[in-house]
Amino acid sequence: MPGISSRVGLLSLLALLPAVADEGMWLFNRPPVRQLESQYGFKIEQSWMDHLQRSAVKFGGGSGSFVSSHGLVLTNHHVGRGQVEKLSTPEKDLLAGGFLADSQAGELKCPNTELNVLVSIEDVTAQVNAAVTPQQSVEEAVAARRKTIAAIEKKSQDETGLKSNVVTLYQGGAYHLYRYKKYTDVRLVFAPDTFAAAFGGDPDNFEYPRFCLDMMIFRVYEDGKPAETPDYLKWNAKGAQDGDLVFVAGHPGRTNRSNTLAELEDMRDHGLPDRLAQTYRSEVILSAWAARDKENHRRAIGMITGVQNGRKNSQARLEGLLDPAFMDHKAKDEQVFRAKLAKSPEWKSAGEGFAKIAQTQKDADALNDRDRMLESGEAFSSTLYAKARTLLRAGVETPKPDGERLREFQSQARASMELGLFSEEPVYKDLEVLRLTNSLTLLCEKAGVADPLVAQIMAGKAPHERALELIEGTTLEKVEVRRALYDGGSKAVDASTDPLILLAKLVDEPARAFRKQSDAIGEVSVQAHQKIAQAQLALGGDTIYPDATGTLRLAYGVAKGYQSGKTVIPWTTTFSGLYERSKHEDGAPPFDLSPVWRDQQKALKLDTPFNFVSTADITGGNSGSPIVNRAGELVGLVFDGNYESLVMGFGYTEVQARCVAVHSAGMLEALKSIYHADWLIQEI
Amino acid sequence: MPGISSRVGLLSLLALLPAVADEGMWLFNRPPVRQLESQYGFKIEQSWMDHLQRSAVKFGGGSGSFVSSHGLVLTNHHVGRGQVEKLSTPEKDLLAGGFLADSQAGELKCPNTELNVLVSIEDVTAQVNAAVTPQQSVEEAVAARRKTIAAIEKKSQDETGLKSNVVTLYQGGAYHLYRYKKYTDVRLVFAPDTFAAAFGGDPDNFEYPRFCLDMMIFRVYEDGKPAETPDYLKWNAKGAQDGDLVFVAGHPGRTNRSNTLAELEDMRDHGLPDRLAQTYRSEVILSAWAARDKENHRRAIGMITGVQNGRKNSQARLEGLLDPAFMDHKAKDEQVFRAKLAKSPEWKSAGEGFAKIAQTQKDADALNDRDRMLESGEAFSSTLYAKARTLLRAGVETPKPDGERLREFQSQARASMELGLFSEEPVYKDLEVLRLTNSLTLLCEKAGVADPLVAQIMAGKAPHERALELIEGTTLEKVEVRRALYDGGSKAVDASTDPLILLAKLVDEPARAFRKQSDAIGEVSVQAHQKIAQAQLALGGDTIYPDATGTLRLAYGVAKGYQSGKTVIPWTTTFSGLYERSKHEDGAPPFDLSPVWRDQQKALKLDTPFNFVSTADITGGNSGSPIVNRAGELVGLVFDGNYESLVMGFGYTEVQARCVAVHSAGMLEALKSIYHADWLIQEI
Repeated sequence: MPGISSRVGLLSLLALLPAVADEGMWLFNRPPVRQLESQYGFKIEQSWMDHLQRSAVKFGGGSGSFVSSHGLVLTNHHVGRGQVEKLSTPEKDLLAGGFLADSQAGELKCPNTELNVLVSIEDVTAQVNAAVTPQQSVEEAVAARRKTIAAIEKKSQDETGLKSNVVTLYQGGAYHLYRYKKYTDVRLVFAPDTFAAAFGGDPDNFEYPRFCLDMMIFRVYEDGKPAETPDYLKWNAKGAQDGDLVFVAGHPGRTNRSNTLAELEDMRDHGLPDRLAQTYRSEVILSAWAARDKENHRRAIGMITGVQNGRKNSQARLEGLLDPAFMDHKAKDEQVFRAKLAKSPEWKSAGEGFAKIAQTQKDADALNDRDRMLESGEAFSSTLYAKARTLLRAGVETPKPDGERLREFQSQARASMELGLFSEEPVYKDLEVLRLTNSLTLLCEKAGVADPLVAQIMAGKAPHERALELIEGTTLEKVEVRRALYDGGSKAVDASTDPLILLAKLVDEPARAFRKQSDAIGEVSVQAHQKIAQAQLALGGDTIYPDATGTLRLAYGVAKGYQSGKTVIPWTTTFSGLYERSKHEDGAPPFDLSPVWRDQQKALKLDTPFNFVSTADITGGNSGSPIVNRAGELVGLVFDGNYESLVMGFGYTEVQARCVAVHSAGMLEALKSIYHADWLIQEI
Repeated sequence: MPGISSRVGLLSLLALLPAVADEGMWLFNRPPVRQLESQYGFKIEQSWMDHLQRSAVKFGGGSGSFVSSHGLVLTNHHVGRGQVEKLSTPEKDLLAGGFLADSQAGELKCPNTELNVLVSIEDVTAQVNAAVTPQQSVEEAVAARRKTIAAIEKKSQDETGLKSNVVTLYQGGAYHLYRYKKYTDVRLVFAPDTFAAAFGGDPDNFEYPRFCLDMMIFRVYEDGKPAETPDYLKWNAKGAQDGDLVFVAGHPGRTNRSNTLAELEDMRDHGLPDRLAQTYRSEVILSAWAARDKENHRRAIGMITGVQNGRKNSQARLEGLLDPAFMDHKAKDEQVFRAKLAKSPEWKSAGEGFAKIAQTQKDADALNDRDRMLESGEAFSSTLYAKARTLLRAGVETPKPDGERLREFQSQARASMELGLFSEEPVYKDLEVLRLTNSLTLLCEKAGVADPLVAQIMAGKAPHERALELIEGTTLEKVEVRRALYDGGSKAVDASTDPLILLAKLVDEPARAFRKQSDAIGEVSVQAHQKIAQAQLALGGDTIYPDATGTLRLAYGVAKGYQSGKTVIPWTTTFSGLYERSKHEDGAPPFDLSPVWRDQQKALKLDTPFNFVSTADITGGNSGSPIVNRAGELVGLVFDGNYESLVMGFGYTEVQARCVAVHSAGMLEALKSIYHADWLIQEI
C-alpha cells in the first residue's frame, strides 16, 4: 500500500499549472455555460439546471439528493451517522450493525433533524450595499449591514414561509437571498454496517484507491406521509464510465481561493498550526479514553472520527502553504493583479485593500488570547456548557430588536438554534468531564493560572476536579430544565444557580467584548475584500466563481485516474479490491469486514465498479453530493477527496487531485446481493 | 471499569499530608537505617545491602536483577523490548509471538547491548568542589567542574578497568563516583508474547488493577560462557503477602522534589505544556502512519509505545502542578525553609539562591527557540540525522583534551556513544521521512519560514519534499559508511557530501552557541541549588535523600491496596481477573489474549496472585527493579506506578499512589503452566 512518501513533488507541480480545465464551484444562477459548451460541447438547459437544483438536498453540513418521487434521500453514511447515533443504544448499535427498514412502515424517525431544498435565488446585492455608507464607522457598518440582512431575511420568511438566508458571495462582492423548503420529519431507511461504510477508517480517509459503501438512505415526510418529490434523480444502473463528463450538485463548505497572500501566510504561520495543535491534543485525549473501555469507545467514536478528519485536512492544507513554489505562484498572481489595479482609474482604490487586509491579520493576532478562548468556547469544550451559554445569551438577546441581536439569535437562525438547544441527543457526563478537563487545562496553559479571571473560573481547583464539580453539579442535561430557563428568559437565567450558567455569566462580558473587537476587525477586512472582489468581477467576467460558502454549487469534471510517482492509479476500484485490501491487513480493524460481507462474498459480482474518481472541483461539505451524467441521471455519490485534493481549498488542480465517489452500480449491487433490499431497489 | 472521573480529589489530599512513612529513594551508601528500624523494626545489615547492590542490574534506562548464579537477569518486557525488536524480522516477530530458548545453548545474542552492575561508591565531593572557586566566571566554573569530573572518571577507569561515573547528587550538594562492572554479551532467554506482557496496552498503562506478565529474562556471558554471578536473588515462590514490608532496588530516573516553586511554575507554564504539545503531535502522526499498514505498525509500534508512556506521565504531572492546593503547600514549605535560612548566619547566603534560580528560568525561556530546536534535535527528528550530527561533532571533539570536549565525547561516555553510533538496529527510511517531515514542519512553524537559516535548511522545498530528498539521499544507514567517517575524523567528515552531514554542518554553529548559553544559565542554577542543598543537608540530617538520578537506590514500603472514591482496590490481582477483563472488552485489542493463554487457561491456577501494589517510593527507571522481602528474596518485579503515583516526581504520597509489580508467584505459575519453561524454572 502506498505510504506517505509516495506523494512526491505534487505541490510543486500544482503551482506551475495555468488556471485549468475543470475548475469551479459555480452558482446555480450563474452556471459555466460557455466553459461547458467550449470544452465538452455540452449545452446547459435551464430546465436541466432547475431539475438538478430541486433534486439536491442540504443535509446538515453536507449534501444529499432525492432519488425517488416519494422523498427518498441519498447521502453519505458519514453525513447521516449523527442521526444513526441518536437512534442507537448500548444494546442496539445501528451504527456498527447497520439498518434496513423491512418496509416503508418500518422507517425510523430521526429526532431534531431538518433537510433543506433550495427553491429560489434572488440577487439582493444592491439592497445590502445601500445600507453601508462611507460615512459610517466600522461598528456602524457592521450593525447596518447585519440589520439590513436580517430585515431582508425576515421579510422573505414572512412572505413566503420559506427559510430565507442572505448569502455573502465573492467576499461581499454579491449578496444573494436563498429560499429553502424545509423538511423536519426525516426517517432512516437504510444504513450499511460501519465496517463497509467506513472501511479503512482514518488510515484510508482522504486516500485513494478506496473501498467504501459510504451511503445512507433517508426519507422525508410531510403530514406523516412520504413527501411528494417530483424532482428526483433517476438511478443509472450502469453508472459512470472512464472518461465520462460528470456533474456534482452539492454544498461545498469553505474555500480560501480569494484570500490574499497575507491571509494565507497568517494561516500558514498561525491559523493552521494552532488548529492542528488543538486537533492533535483532542485526538489523543479522546482516543486514549475511548481505548479504555468499549462503552467509552461507543460514546466517543463519532467525535474522534470528526477530529481525525479535520486533522488530515489541516495537515494537507498546511503542507500546501509550506510549499514555497505554491506561495511564490500565489504571490506572483497577486502582484500581476495589483499592478493591473494600480493602472485602472476605476479600481485603483480597491488595490489599497491588500495592505488593509494584511493589517487586519496582525490586529486579529494581537487580540486577547484568553478572551478569544472564552468567546470561541475553546476554554470550555462541553456540550452542556454550550447550552448554558446559549440560554444565558438567549435571555439577553431575545428582547432586543432583531437586527441588533447577535447573529445566532436573529429570526432566521432561531429555529436552528432551538433545534440544537432542545436536542435530545444523549449527553455523556463522563465524556463531558474529560473534554472540559482538557479545555480548562488549555485555558490555564494559554492564559496562565495567575490571571484573575482564570483563577475565578478555576475556583481554587485543578482542572479535573473543577470539571467534575461543574458537570456533576449541572442539571442542564435535562431538556425540561433547559426549556424552563429558555421560556423564563433572562429573569429565570439570572435566578439559576446551575454551575454552568454561573460560569457562562462569569465570562460573558470579556467574551462579548472580544467578539465586538473581532467583528470590527473583520469588517475592515470584509470591506477591503468586497472592493477587491468587485474589481475582480468587473475585470474577470464569467471566469469568476465565488469561494465556497456552504451553499448549492455546480461542479463538473471527467471520470479519470491519475499517476502517483511511477504508479498509475485507475479511475475505479471493484469489490475484489475490497476483499484483497482486507486480506492484506489480516482483517485487522479498520480493515475488518462485517459477517454479512464475509458471508456474501460469493453472491457479489466482484468486478462491479465500487468507488471511482473524477476531476470535479469539490471540498468538504460536498459529502453526499450526487454525481450525474449529461442526462441528469445519478451515476455516483461523492464521499471524499483524495489527500492531493485537500490543497484545493487554496486553488484548483487536476494533476493528482480527485473527487472520490461511490459508484451507482456498486451501490446497487451491494443493496441487492449483500443487503437484499429488494423493496428499496424497486423504488429507486 | 473505572473511568478517568473516578480519580476524585486525590491531589488535594496529597497536599495536606505531612512528610510520610515510606518516602525516599535512598542511596546505597546512606540507607534509611533509623527509619526502617523505628517504623518496621527492621535492622539493615551491611551484608544485606551489599548483596542486594551486587544483585541489582542497570539495564539501559531501566533496572533488572540477577536471579541465578549463572547470570540470569530478570527485567521487564518493556525494558527488554528494544532487544527483542532488534532480533525480530517481518517473518519472525518475537515481540508478538514471544520466545523461550529450548536450552541454554539456544539463547539469542543481543547486538550492541550492555548491562552494568554497581561495584562501589566513593564520595568525591571535596575533590569536585575544590575545582570551582568564587573567582571563576560561570563559563570557567562549568569548564573547571567538567574537567575535574572527567579526570576523576578517567583515572578511576584507567586504574580499575571499571566503568566510572561521577554522579551529581543533591543538586550538586554531593558528588559520588560510581564504578560498574560491565557485561556486553547479553542473550535473550525468555520473552512472553506481547499480549500477555503488555495486556491492556496504553489504556491500562499507569493504571491499576492490572494484569501484565511484564517480564523478560536474559543471561549475561563472559568469554562465551554464562557469567558467574554469586550475588543473585533467590526466587521466593510464595511471593509478597498483604501487609508485607518490601524493598525495591532499582534506578529511578528523575524526580524534581528539590525544585523550587519558581521551577515548578515554569514547568507548569512552559515545560510540561510544550512537551505535551509535541507528544500529542508525535503520537497522532506515528499512530496514523502505523494504522495504514501492518508493516508500518510493526516498524513504529515501539516508538508509539514510548510516546504514549511519556504522554500519560506528563499529563499526570501537569495535573499535579495545576492543583492550587499542591502548589500552595509547596510555596509554604519553601517560605518556612527560606525563613529558617534567613535567620541562620551560616546559611543566609544560600537563601539568595531562590531568586537566582527564578531568574535562570526566565533567562532560559528567553533563549532563541530556533537554536534550541537545532541543538536538541527537535527540528530534525531522525535517527540518521542524529548519527550525522554525532559524526560531525566526533570529528571536531575527539582531538580536544578530554576535559574540554562536549560531555558526550569524553572518555567515560565514549563507549556508549560508539555503541549507539554503530548500532545495527534497522533504520526504516519511510519512518525517517515521516518523522523528519513532521519535525521540519515544526521548525517552520516555530522559527518561521522567513528566517534565513530556516530557508537554507528547507532549500526551497516543502517539509515532506525536503525530508524525502535528505533521507533518500543519505547513505548513513550503512554501518560501514558511518565507520569510515568516524575513523576518518573531521577530514573525512569535511569531505563528505552526504546531505545529512551537510545539514548538520549548516546548523552546528548556532546550535553550539545555544548550548553554551544554556550551559551558562544552567551553571548559575547549579551553583544556587548546590548551596541550598548544602544548607538542607546540614539542617535536615538523615531525613534527606537526593532526587533520583538514574542511579541505584533503595526504596521500601508495604504491600497494600487503597481506596478510590468509594471503591476499595485490593492489593493484588489474579489470573482470573485477566480473563474477566479480556472478556468484558470482547477480547478487542489491546485486551486480546494470545492463543497459548486462551488454550492453557484451564492449566493455570487462576487464583494465583498476578500483579500487586505497594507503597514503595518509585518512578520511571525503576521498571524492572526487583522487589525483595526482609530476607532479601525476590517477591516481585516492579513494572509501573499507578496514575496517582505520577505526581510523585514532585513529592511522595501514599494515599493512592502505588508501585505496581508482577508477583513472583504469578511469574512462576505462568512460566510453568503457560510456557512450560521447566529448565528455566529449575535454574531460578
